Amino acid sequence: MKLESYLSGTWQSGQGDGRTFVNPVTGEELGRVDASGLDAAAAMDYARDVGGPALRALGFAERAALLKAVAGVLAENRDRYGEIARLNSGNTAIDAAIDIDGAIATLKVYARLGASLGDARTIIEPGREQLAREPVFFARHVWNSRPGVSLHINAFNFPAWGLWEKAAVALLAGVPSLSKPATATAWLAVEMMRDVAAAQVVPEGALNLLCGDGAALTTALQPMDSLAFTGSAETAAALRAHPAVLERAPRLSIEADSINATILGPDVSPDSPLFDLAVREVVKALTVKAGQLCTNIRRILVPAAIVGAFQDAVVARLSTVTVGDPAAEGVRMGPLVNEAQREAACAGLAGLSTETRTLCGGGAPKEVAGADPQQGSFLAPTLLHCADPMAARLIHETEVFGPCATVMACQPAEAPALAARGGGSLAVSLFSNDASYAAETLQVLAPWHGRLLIVDEQVGRNHTGHAIVMPQCVHGGPGRAGGGEELGGLRGLRLHLQRSALQASEPLLTRIGDAAAVATL
Amino acid sequence: MKLESYLSGTWQSGQGDGRTFVNPVTGEELGRVDASGLDAAAAMDYARDVGGPALRALGFAERAALLKAVAGVLAENRDRYGEIARLNSGNTAIDAAIDIDGAIATLKVYARLGASLGDARTIIEPGREQLAREPVFFARHVWNSRPGVSLHINAFNFPAWGLWEKAAVALLAGVPSLSKPATATAWLAVEMMRDVAAAQVVPEGALNLLCGDGAALTTALQPMDSLAFTGSAETAAALRAHPAVLERAPRLSIEADSINATILGPDVSPDSPLFDLAVREVVKALTVKAGQLCTNIRRILVPAAIVGAFQDAVVARLSTVTVGDPAAEGVRMGPLVNEAQREAACAGLAGLSTETRTLCGGGAPKEVAGADPQQGSFLAPTLLHCADPMAARLIHETEVFGPCATVMACQPAEAPALAARGGGSLAVSLFSNDASYAAETLQVLAPWHGRLLIVDEQVGRNHTGHAIVMPQCVHGGPGRAGGGEELGGLRGLRLHLQRSALQASEPLLTRIGDAAAVATL
Repeated sequence: MKLESYLSGTWQSGQGDGRTFVNPVTGEELGRVDASGLDAAAAMDYARDVGGPALRALGFAERAALLKAVAGVLAENRDRYGEIARLNSGNTAIDAAIDIDGAIATLKVYARLGASLGDARTIIEPGREQLAREPVFFARHVWNSRPGVSLHINAFNFPAWGLWEKAAVALLAGVPSLSKPATATAWLAVEMMRDVAAAQVVPEGALNLLCGDGAALTTALQPMDSLAFTGSAETAAALRAHPAVLERAPRLSIEADSINATILGPDVSPDSPLFDLAVREVVKALTVKAGQLCTNIRRILVPAAIVGAFQDAVVARLSTVTVGDPAAEGVRMGPLVNEAQREAACAGLAGLSTETRTLCGGGAPKEVAGADPQQGSFLAPTLLHCADPMAARLIHETEVFGPCATVMACQPAEAPALAARGGGSLAVSLFSNDASYAAETLQVLAPWHGRLLIVDEQVGRNHTGHAIVMPQCVHGGPGRAGGGEELGGLRGLRLHLQRSALQASEPLLTRIGDAAAVATL
Repeated sequence: MKLESYLSGTWQSGQGDGRTFVNPVTGEELGRVDASGLDAAAAMDYARDVGGPALRALGFAERAALLKAVAGVLAENRDRYGEIARLNSGNTAIDAAIDIDGAIATLKVYARLGASLGDARTIIEPGREQLAREPVFFARHVWNSRPGVSLHINAFNFPAWGLWEKAAVALLAGVPSLSKPATATAWLAVEMMRDVAAAQVVPEGALNLLCGDGAALTTALQPMDSLAFTGSAETAAALRAHPAVLERAPRLSIEADSINATILGPDVSPDSPLFDLAVREVVKALTVKAGQLCTNIRRILVPAAIVGAFQDAVVARLSTVTVGDPAAEGVRMGPLVNEAQREAACAGLAGLSTETRTLCGGGAPKEVAGADPQQGSFLAPTLLHCADPMAARLIHETEVFGPCATVMACQPAEAPALAARGGGSLAVSLFSNDASYAAETLQVLAPWHGRLLIVDEQVGRNHTGHAIVMPQCVHGGPGRAGGGEELGGLRGLRLHLQRSALQASEPLLTRIGDAAAVATL
């Protein structure tokens, strides 16, 4: 199987051999991905010149209807996608649902948000300012669709959600997208795009997909385009320094490495419900999607008095987790996506070993259910302990992208500073019933983190998870996490719209305001 | 005179000879600027570690009081600053007032805005989202001060306004700033900072100033810092590609070259009031501050039928403008800031000559009042005509930073596309009473421009000007203009605050919300 690309309105195949993608349970090749000979610049032009005008001609509610239709197409084929996720990503049913149902849910949320904006094509902010002494000259601020294309460079761990959370927001904003899925898991993205294209539910040129090397896409970026990238800090730096980016200043939104932390408050004792809730969340972090989530817990900050009890509880729970082929009975955790990722994770663990000791896991599991532990890219759930987190450096800077986290003891007052040692993260969580401690800690934690989850006993199990990105909340973080911001309801439209100050007479502002939707982003 | 820097709480002098700054009326040296041997990294640390905590300990209203106090100090010394502006920038009284009074007014506007936020130190957005089925888990979005320093690299044309429009917003946000004025006009910035420091009206470390080479400042940038730059696209690209920026991802806000346009609507005839209003605005563009404004009109799009009349009217008005020493009687326009700028402007004019013909000006004026046209950096008000603007390239891409603009005929329907040929601009203006034409044109113009001014007869002369940046309106533009966004009332705080999603129980969110100020940015 060689994956095709959907460019300039047709499915096209690269002319080279390209790179392989595999079944990580067995290591066997599933197919190849190649983009050589494809005209990336022409595809960017096609999106800009054909898709853009078609989308901008529609109002928000009409574009919202497109999203609903896309969600419908995907929902119809949900089971087939789950099968691909199992074969190509080693996903369990739960892993696949997070990706695939998460994509469909995000499309539906944006369909609802878009419908609320009605027929308008412009967003106008509430309020106006009188600028001159005579009351004849005022200012308002408007947001309009940028006449470019949004280039999406996606990560391998969310082939479905990563594709659609970016494309949904661009589409609603009236901006065509060209998505480049990660080679390792591009298969699912291609299948989804093929179904949506075949259903003819969006205008020509609105959605485009390139499988394979995307360098020529970045080179083709123009001032009104945007580039939304999810992946490593290293690639992010290369994109930031790309000549096309430097010369033509397209907008960038980057989501990169993040060494996220969770904090147990000073009030958490081993017999409290919060203790169990924290254990449960850490066990999820070390099993769901084999730990391959950019928002995942990587550092666990625990009051010194309960570190031992906490570690024991997590290790005990992990010992009951069956790793193996997701198709086999009772398997709760599959492999990493491929051998390169397992090697990278093991290299990361080797680095961390200078600052930590291993409480469980630490390499390939001895036994896996229904598969050969040597052939598949399995990694055992790994809990590490760091005895001197203030002096340590690597535990705060190394993202082992798999089922791995490090426990460390920490004074309650030190927790925010220790969390901030990550240099800027996507998500931090706090388990505490002490509202004073929570409020004080949050004030210091907040500027270093894109999202803060606080679990108290009132919330209990009714939270959405440390790692789960909700479309209602902004996703992204400062510093090491890349500085980007996605989703967050209408806030996500910012990347694709231009805010402009409008200075004019009252009648003209009223006329423009009447045709626009009032909202803040 | 050698200018000192205000770093780490003391006034310090560089150890080298540095670079000179001059009186552009005579070319004589006024003094020198040098930063060699100064510890820039220590100064950044001092701002971060001393100024930051002091500012973050204050609420918005307390910080607003600082701004009011700074404005008070500057207002007391206004006349002395005007004298420096005349000597070092060749400013007329009106030119100096735009810079100096503009700075004071901007500080006062932010003082009022800050007072409206009260004691809070956090901003919370209105509205909340229920995230779980049970009504016990919700999300809100908060904005908190980033614990870094804001580095401001300012342009020579607004030594006062450029310094304070950036510092005011950072200060209100609870973020210390380190400003690097342009060497050519650093004198005024130093005098202002010296008065403010002597008055002891802001906390230690909150305001810092480095005169001279600022390369070491950029190198010292950390993830929580920001860099706000106003200047050339070339320097902007170098800053974007700086290793410290690529590796540590501080926030960037860039305001660069902008080939702004003004458009005369299809309804404007030579006998209409709008015709005179447009002529008046273009004459201002070619005289005020000798044309050295980044928001200035550079391209004038006129219906073909009235191009001749329009050009004639502008040239006639310009012929009455006296260029010379601002101290001399009747002088309405001074020199460019120095000989390097005049040479750069002349080089730009030479380039444009391949696409235009000169209607008036085009080089040094033959006569100047009270000065020697050879010794001073004078440039005559220059109006060019381009016969084929659709085929031309340089007129849309060359910013001649002086009293120079190009007239071109254009079909009303073509105007937005022609304006967009600038590749993204800070400001565009439109003179028209035709509300339908204005509304349609604005929709296409808006995404390419940070600000749109529409003058109709109801507005008449009661507008604030094409080039004038109002603190209530966002300032910045997409693409070539750099993609930054400053000011715009509270919107300007964005650069210095981090938005975070907060997921928690109702009681905790209420507690945090009660201590915060509700606002949208």
